[in-house]
Amino acid sequence: MSQRLPKNPAFDFRKYQPFAFAPKLNDRTWPDKQITQAPIWASVDLRDGNQALIDPMNIEQKLKFFKLLIDIGFKEIEIGFPSAAQVEFDFTRRLIEDNLVPDDVTLQVLVQAREHLIDRTFEALQGAKRAIVHVYNSTSKVQRDKVYQLDKEQIKQIAINGATMLKDKAKNYPDTEWVFQYSPESFSQTETDYAVEVCDAVCEVWQPWLGQAVILNLPATVEASTPNVYADQVEYFCRHLKHRKDVIISLHTHNDRGCAVAASELGLMAGADRIEGTLLGNGERTGNMDILVMAMNLYTQGIDPKLDFSQVSEVVQIVSECNNLPVHPRHPYVGELVFTAFSGSHQDAIKKSLDYNEKHQETDNHWDVAYLPIDPSHIGRGYQDVVRINSQSGKGGAAYILQRHYGFDLPRWTQIDFARVVQAQAETLARELKTEELLDIFTNAYLSQDTFHLSDYTISNRGGEVTFQGQVASPEQVFEVIGQGNGALSAFIDGLVKATGRQIHVTNYAEHAIDRVMRTDNETGNQTNAAAAAYIQLAVDGQIYSGIGTCNSTVSAMLKGALSALAQAW
Amino acid sequence: MSQRLPKNPAFDFRKYQPFAFAPKLNDRTWPDKQITQAPIWASVDLRDGNQALIDPMNIEQKLKFFKLLIDIGFKEIEIGFPSAAQVEFDFTRRLIEDNLVPDDVTLQVLVQAREHLIDRTFEALQGAKRAIVHVYNSTSKVQRDKVYQLDKEQIKQIAINGATMLKDKAKNYPDTEWVFQYSPESFSQTETDYAVEVCDAVCEVWQPWLGQAVILNLPATVEASTPNVYADQVEYFCRHLKHRKDVIISLHTHNDRGCAVAASELGLMAGADRIEGTLLGNGERTGNMDILVMAMNLYTQGIDPKLDFSQVSEVVQIVSECNNLPVHPRHPYVGELVFTAFSGSHQDAIKKSLDYNEKHQETDNHWDVAYLPIDPSHIGRGYQDVVRINSQSGKGGAAYILQRHYGFDLPRWTQIDFARVVQAQAETLARELKTEELLDIFTNAYLSQDTFHLSDYTISNRGGEVTFQGQVASPEQVFEVIGQGNGALSAFIDGLVKATGRQIHVTNYAEHAIDRVMRTDNETGNQTNAAAAAYIQLAVDGQIYSGIGTCNSTVSAMLKGALSALAQAW
Repeated sequence: MSQRLPKNPAFDFRKYQPFAFAPKLNDRTWPDKQITQAPIWASVDLRDGNQALIDPMNIEQKLKFFKLLIDIGFKEIEIGFPSAAQVEFDFTRRLIEDNLVPDDVTLQVLVQAREHLIDRTFEALQGAKRAIVHVYNSTSKVQRDKVYQLDKEQIKQIAINGATMLKDKAKNYPDTEWVFQYSPESFSQTETDYAVEVCDAVCEVWQPWLGQAVILNLPATVEASTPNVYADQVEYFCRHLKHRKDVIISLHTHNDRGCAVAASELGLMAGADRIEGTLLGNGERTGNMDILVMAMNLYTQGIDPKLDFSQVSEVVQIVSECNNLPVHPRHPYVGELVFTAFSGSHQDAIKKSLDYNEKHQETDNHWDVAYLPIDPSHIGRGYQDVVRINSQSGKGGAAYILQRHYGFDLPRWTQIDFARVVQAQAETLARELKTEELLDIFTNAYLSQDTFHLSDYTISNRGGEVTFQGQVASPEQVFEVIGQGNGALSAFIDGLVKATGRQIHVTNYAEHAIDRVMRTDNETGNQTNAAAAAYIQLAVDGQIYSGIGTCNSTVSAMLKGALSALAQAW
Repeated sequence: MSQRLPKNPAFDFRKYQPFAFAPKLNDRTWPDKQITQAPIWASVDLRDGNQALIDPMNIEQKLKFFKLLIDIGFKEIEIGFPSAAQVEFDFTRRLIEDNLVPDDVTLQVLVQAREHLIDRTFEALQGAKRAIVHVYNSTSKVQRDKVYQLDKEQIKQIAINGATMLKDKAKNYPDTEWVFQYSPESFSQTETDYAVEVCDAVCEVWQPWLGQAVILNLPATVEASTPNVYADQVEYFCRHLKHRKDVIISLHTHNDRGCAVAASELGLMAGADRIEGTLLGNGERTGNMDILVMAMNLYTQGIDPKLDFSQVSEVVQIVSECNNLPVHPRHPYVGELVFTAFSGSHQDAIKKSLDYNEKHQETDNHWDVAYLPIDPSHIGRGYQDVVRINSQSGKGGAAYILQRHYGFDLPRWTQIDFARVVQAQAETLARELKTEELLDIFTNAYLSQDTFHLSDYTISNRGGEVTFQGQVASPEQVFEVIGQGNGALSAFIDGLVKATGRQIHVTNYAEHAIDRVMRTDNETGNQTNAAAAAYIQLAVDGQIYSGIGTCNSTVSAMLKGALSALAQAW
């Protein structure tokens, strides 16, 4: 073994301290709650998402993204920070002046609690039917101590001043229905009591109990604790806020510890009404809460997500075109590999679950399949993703693909036989096998034998005694096959025994109709149809061989299956 | 706006049902717990991770990955499923026969509860010093009903049979110290009472109270509920298991709902001892719990993670080479963008926090910086990632880069002036500005003016009265500059006023030494050093202009700074 990586002496956990802002809440109620309905969703893709991009979106990309958000069903969309950059201002004007905002959609914009920025913000929103002006200032201890170097009272005063300015300036634009939103930015790293105090002070200015629509948004600007602690913070906040019933409580979580979705879900159980996030989790650093994942999590519980993700591939494509970020192959619900099982036992269980569901669909049409939390077709994903074959795969996987793509319903003993062939091939190639390769292997192993050719034949039944009479040609010789039995197969085998002098018994047999197109030839475009597939297991001189035959005639399929098995013994 | 996406009629939440396997646990204790030490870590990269790859690892890749896991500090490593494929068997033999397993590292292998597979497994492990044999069978309702079509008693019997076989076969290899591990696979979708019953039955066979080392592993094979429910399941399991104190409880979570890390963290609070997972979260479908993220989450709380991630870039490189999967730019702790702030307010806060920490490092050397959960240098990441500049950026970001890379400590009034120049440029280019481009913009704006050239000069001080005498050349003319003041700058300005006839006042001034290499010329390799940087703000005929001068001489820097400002007025 080679030398280990050199150690980095800077790596020292003692430079950090345990999270210090968890409220004391021994009588929490959220762990006994379940989510039973979708929250109010607010997309911050065009603001938080956009400001975290290497190359921010241009106006055309922002328009395309905005349209996608409307298509999906978002009713509240934070479109930018119009006072911070000209492009943000111009985009806001474009939406309003070109009348691109549907009546049931509310624009939201962000602004710091500073007068000239608030002025510019109202200017940008002039003519909007309804808009959320979202004002914020940082309240966390690190921001107070290190960034602003102001005390709690001074920081609270910034919030009060911002709220007052918002209220005063809004009066100049009486034709717009204004919603006021306040964020104690970095809420989760703020003492919860103090966050309540600041938000109570903001409410005193806005007086939501008199009818002003107010949203209080609680950001985990940086995720800094386990998600249950954030839920405690949310529940504590909701229980201590003076005018809880008069305001909307909104959550806005980030993913620094990889738990942003969990934090939003537990926070929703803890009493929030509204969730801010982005599609696929774009946003500052590790990103925002992924609304697609959270919405689909609700969907899997039988809850109407109130967002339409029925075509996730298109969603992924548009989002990627706009923000130039890749989507990881394991991204929940949308990644290339998330509906894929390579391992044999998983493939087997998926196949059996689907078979069971098909048989019982009259009495229960719920989706409940081992290893597949949702049916990929529900969100426009193909079934070709579900089972893929490599050396880790077993009999169920190859059987699944042959069944779903080509209509072959292999009996268990054929599955075992074929799995050996497939695994050997996958180990030799040391890579995945494509669906077409699998059919090639299958065809070579069973269907395309040219050891024996069956010519015309006659089968006659005289009072239950069946006689087979025909010719089987091999490259070396032609066998005259004449035999008797109680069925066509047994008569054929009897004839083969007589003609070849070998010990041959049928040890297993299955046959089924197939009505699917087997395969399209890439060069000729011809499609080969087969009406029947027969699976025959023979003992030839004491050794077991499996064969398969396909033909429009069920009897010929059976006879060809027997010859396919016999060819392997030859 | 163009036509919306066509709806997919298959998208229907009513095909799903709420999670049905949450145990009743109103007196749960885990939400009041904190994690205070690292769990026992077990990597399943080479098994669960490997079996989920499009192209499974070859033996050389497996060896490289195994070495990495040892370097990081893993003591328990699941290396494969030796009875399932020849390559898995061969890899196990290679590790043992080539003596590649350190004394303090225990190999773990997976096997189904079936006799011929268990036989083959012990064969693969022959000669190991200590090994964990991990046997499993599925216990969930969907697997019982649809996949196995067996009842609870029959499924329990599979577990008992497997446990018995393991115990009996192990006796044939007395030279190895055997640890027995049992997983009720799909535990989280199993009725918790029944999972306890099955595991109690397994314990009756293995009798851990007599000294046999036993691990009970509780997989969320498919993540199917919010993570608090999994924690309830774990706490319920631990409290109801008959011989809890005699066994190790292990967790194994998957990421189907994007909450695998949260589930493992809450499950650890709920009483588990051990965590199975993978580096960067590789594994079936959406992947396993990401051990790197969970370990770094502990690190940020001042807890020794007992794993060395001090060189994450190398870890990422080796993992990617072995499993051919990309790492998302927002992957917590390791993604390209996770330490980056583009937005102006974030950049400003980071700069101020770092400045504060530098000033107070004598009294408090903890890391606590707005928007940066950890110091990137602690895990071998560069500071160049932290602040990047585009149209969303503000004065703090550009100032941060000039300070950190080039040694310019811009005063606030220069920051504001420069931010305007940078934002206009970023909006015009509609993309990110590279660090070198930023220096170019800075140089063009302030340093490389060729309107005025300062020739030799004399400064004389007679009893506090300073006289400046020299020449300033512009392309059009040469100014004889002679002036008086109480300092060199004021004398120079006085001379400029007299020579040009313009109204000139100094409105702001700052100067500092810089000892860093400013820039390496790519073609010549020459490095330009500057000993001093002077920032001068002038009012020229009532308009404000900022200028900057650099020179080995502090006085010349100052005079050049004044000329840089004056040039803009010209």
